[in-house]
Amino acid sequence: MAYVAFEGRRVYYEEHGQGRPLLVLNGIMMSCRSWSEFVEPFSENNRLILLDFLDQGRSDRMEAEYDQSIQAEVVKTLLDHLELKKACILGISYGGEVAQQFAVKYTEYVDRLILFNTTARTGPWLGDIGDGWNLAARDPDAYYLTTIPVIYSPRFYREQNGWMNRRREKLRPVFSDPEFIRAMVRLTNSARNYDVTKQLHRIKAPTLVVSCQQDYLTPLQEQELICSLIPDSRHVILPGSGHASMYEQPLLFAALTLGFCNCSRTRFDIL
Amino acid sequence: MAYVAFEGRRVYYEEHGQGRPLLVLNGIMMSCRSWSEFVEPFSENNRLILLDFLDQGRSDRMEAEYDQSIQAEVVKTLLDHLELKKACILGISYGGEVAQQFAVKYTEYVDRLILFNTTARTGPWLGDIGDGWNLAARDPDAYYLTTIPVIYSPRFYREQNGWMNRRREKLRPVFSDPEFIRAMVRLTNSARNYDVTKQLHRIKAPTLVVSCQQDYLTPLQEQELICSLIPDSRHVILPGSGHASMYEQPLLFAALTLGFCNCSRTRFDIL
Amino acid sequence: MAYVAFEGRRVYYEEHGQGRPLLVLNGIMMSCRSWSEFVEPFSENNRLILLDFLDQGRSDRMEAEYDQSIQAEVVKTLLDHLELKKACILGISYGGEVAQQFAVKYTEYVDRLILFNTTARTGPWLGDIGDGWNLAARDPDAYYLTTIPVIYSPRFYREQNGWMNRRREKLRPVFSDPEFIRAMVRLTNSARNYDVTKQLHRIKAPTLVVSCQQDYLTPLQEQELICSLIPDSRHVILPGSGHASMYEQPLLFAALTLGFCNCSRTRFDIL
Amino acid sequence: MAYVAFEGRRVYYEEHGQGRPLLVLNGIMMSCRSWSEFVEPFSENNRLILLDFLDQGRSDRMEAEYDQSIQAEVVKTLLDHLELKKACILGISYGGEVAQQFAVKYTEYVDRLILFNTTARTGPWLGDIGDGWNLAARDPDAYYLTTIPVIYSPRFYREQNGWMNRRREKLRPVFSDPEFIRAMVRLTNSARNYDVTKQLHRIKAPTLVVSCQQDYLTPLQEQELICSLIPDSRHVILPGSGHASMYEQPLLFAALTLGFCNCSRTRFDIL
Repeated sequence: MAYVAFEGRRVYYEEHGQGRPLLVLNGIMMSCRSWSEFVEPFSENNRLILLDFLDQGRSDRMEAEYDQSIQAEVVKTLLDHLELKKACILGISYGGEVAQQFAVKYTEYVDRLILFNTTARTGPWLGDIGDGWNLAARDPDAYYLTTIPVIYSPRFYREQNGWMNRRREKLRPVFSDPEFIRAMVRLTNSARNYDVTKQLHRIKAPTLVVSCQQDYLTPLQEQELICSLIPDSRHVILPGSGHASMYEQPLLFAALTLGFCNCSRTRFDIL
Repeated sequence: MAYVAFEGRRVYYEEHGQGRPLLVLNGIMMSCRSWSEFVEPFSENNRLILLDFLDQGRSDRMEAEYDQSIQAEVVKTLLDHLELKKACILGISYGGEVAQQFAVKYTEYVDRLILFNTTARTGPWLGDIGDGWNLAARDPDAYYLTTIPVIYSPRFYREQNGWMNRRREKLRPVFSDPEFIRAMVRLTNSARNYDVTKQLHRIKAPTLVVSCQQDYLTPLQEQELICSLIPDSRHVILPGSGHASMYEQPLLFAALTLGFCNCSRTRFDIL
Repeated sequence: MAYVAFEGRRVYYEEHGQGRPLLVLNGIMMSCRSWSEFVEPFSENNRLILLDFLDQGRSDRMEAEYDQSIQAEVVKTLLDHLELKKACILGISYGGEVAQQFAVKYTEYVDRLILFNTTARTGPWLGDIGDGWNLAARDPDAYYLTTIPVIYSPRFYREQNGWMNRRREKLRPVFSDPEFIRAMVRLTNSARNYDVTKQLHRIKAPTLVVSCQQDYLTPLQEQELICSLIPDSRHVILPGSGHASMYEQPLLFAALTLGFCNCSRTRFDIL
Repeated sequence: MAYVAFEGRRVYYEEHGQGRPLLVLNGIMMSCRSWSEFVEPFSENNRLILLDFLDQGRSDRMEAEYDQSIQAEVVKTLLDHLELKKACILGISYGGEVAQQFAVKYTEYVDRLILFNTTARTGPWLGDIGDGWNLAARDPDAYYLTTIPVIYSPRFYREQNGWMNRRREKLRPVFSDPEFIRAMVRLTNSARNYDVTKQLHRIKAPTLVVSCQQDYLTPLQEQELICSLIPDSRHVILPGSGHASMYEQPLLFAALTLGFCNCSRTRFDIL
């Protein structure tokens, strides 16, 4: 419900609750509003900070293309504005990429790092997927059918078909808004050269990496790579979920986040 | 190199070699030409039969929409034409769907059944994927980017990037051909109502079901379902491959096919 | 630090901290002491209750054989003694079996259920494993080598070899104590007829089921079965761990437990 | 049906059929007799060679301890005796270890290499398992319960319980034979220092590595390691099987072997 200035633009953010700071970074199509169901559990014992990236939600739109690394500077600006020297940082998908970019540059700001459904690099495969999204952006139906099915599991689509249909109705006007679509194209392009594989070893914070077995956008192998590169990392797999884990497995998403963020110790002398 | 008539249309097929008959059914974008590297090993000890479905390769194009079940009748017509009472039938993807439709209806014709990267039904998720393909069909680049990345693994895309780029050049004129694209749209639509889950129990032939761990079009769970429904089935998983297994793992594709088709016994008295 | 009477025997239990009650049930070789590293995080915001089953730790030894179901009655007695009408119940391995027996009988006592590395039944395979343990019980070295390697992952054994060697030294006198060994044999035998597959549908509490990919005593498929039978269950897989998950992945063990036990909501209206 | 001399000892072997040579190397408890159901399919188009290692089946017993590498020399002696310059070599478990030892030393003799359920090294975990087997060797029942359940999947044990019970009856007199047991102990000890991880890069032959998802003696991760070290290797996973894959999945075992051994080409120009 507030804004911070970043290079002449307004960045929207929200704060809820008190306690150990937990900053949550959105996936590409998301905004602060996407977390409405999580605000209560995430702010019960934590100072929850939500943020719309540039070109997202209530933050300002960009005009020209830019590199995703600018979003990591947005995060830095916000934390400094809030006078936070350390926060637990959670990122999903695009937000997980920004979280990694931030964590390799501003190592000391990261209390604990939680990465859901994300990757350490935009390889040629993911690059082509993104190009396909951008070509589909001319037509709302094509955009829906190109971007949405791939982020859910076939199981969820089948079992929650009513919800999927309502979602389609809800997204139709959004995907018909040329402003929104242009922002989406820019966000997609901003990740084109993303690659932190050479820098991940710098992250010292305890890190949780979560994979979903039916994630067909940032598949399991991508998170295995992340785990092999971040020294103090550990890996969890959710067998019943696609890429959008916070919708398909909201309770597990919340439990893993709160448990990892708030556990009073991260070192155990096993006996 | 020959044609058989089916309801006033010409269906192209090829025969190579002699021995236990092995009929190979194409995936949706494939044609007999796609198997050129496999003709030698598949015909060394077998009578290999290749076939272009209606709307594929050198077979006649259709005008109106049709149901995929017609392709099973094409198979039946060809086997009768060749006076074959029994054949080992291999199908991949769309070809695996036709193989299952054929096998549940003409049970006695099936010597052994080999299913690669396929599904027992077009659920709402796969249906939407197909609709997305069809909307992308207006633009060759969009069609490439919507249909091709999803059928390869990110690993293959990265390790065989030169091959992928040459493939893109090769497919550009193909995807610019309105005849080809209209046929693809009809083929895609023909599978819309496909569902053999209630009939698969009829299949008595020894069946091999092959999954690929990076198959993001017909994922592993679809083949687990097939295996749970076909009584005499067994399951193999290829960990290093996407949907197009015959390109990503050609030697394993050939070895599994020849080994399962030609093994002199299918029953073992374990001791 | 206290005892409750059960059918003329003393049952040892401990309480730590305040908050939402969390009862932790031991694996077969464990005792309250095994949780020493977890007492701090588990009692920071919770009323943690630890318990030695009959024939475990500081609880009384039994003389004759008995059925595992008696341990569920021990749990019931303790909760009544503490005047607890509802608790979050965590069980690992043998403790997970008792947790399931308790939950299907005293449904209303279970706030949330957390099952690590456990099974819904002692099938013929696990039964033979248990018989092998009991035959090895005559010799401390044989008992160590028959029971211990199987509960760790090869990776942990290799990476934590010093810890494993110290553990062997620590367990040598324990496994040389005939009282301890006789208790272990009785505990093992008590699970011989365990099978709750027909009753699990009664459990209404939100349930978390955790598998470890290198669990060779209660493998992944056993937890898939549990998840298919408990209505409101969800499944998490730890890829880098064997059966003794609280030692191999203590931070994930703690995070999953605290996150699932304490999350302020279990229902999410995904939007 | 014949013997070859090796360092003053008689090594039993069998030959069946004609064609591309296929040498099959036994697991630790096996002998040529174990392959009786496979002789027909494996010799239909191949010259099948079976072999009892020293301390196995009808080959001579050893007196003192020895290193497993001696068995690779046995293989070399036999191939030279048969004047075979090249053979397809299949090894399962212990036989797969010998196959790897042979292949890294006598690279040019290996036409194709097929490895089922095996490992590249005896790490501390597998070493302790072996020590446990040897301590159990004093008692036939203990030996059965310590060595047998771990090599089958719980599923097979349950579904084939009659077969397992008959097998137990059959193995009882075998495990009561002190000669057999002493040989087993020596075989087990011979693998104690086995480690070819540093040499596997030398293998140039096309290699097939087969894992079973319920293999709890040489788990999946061991074969992933092998695949990462042998240049021209590929990996297949059997989801419904334990360690003894030739008994649990005999048709897949035969199909993979024959298909990989006999495929007329191993190089494919994907198009």
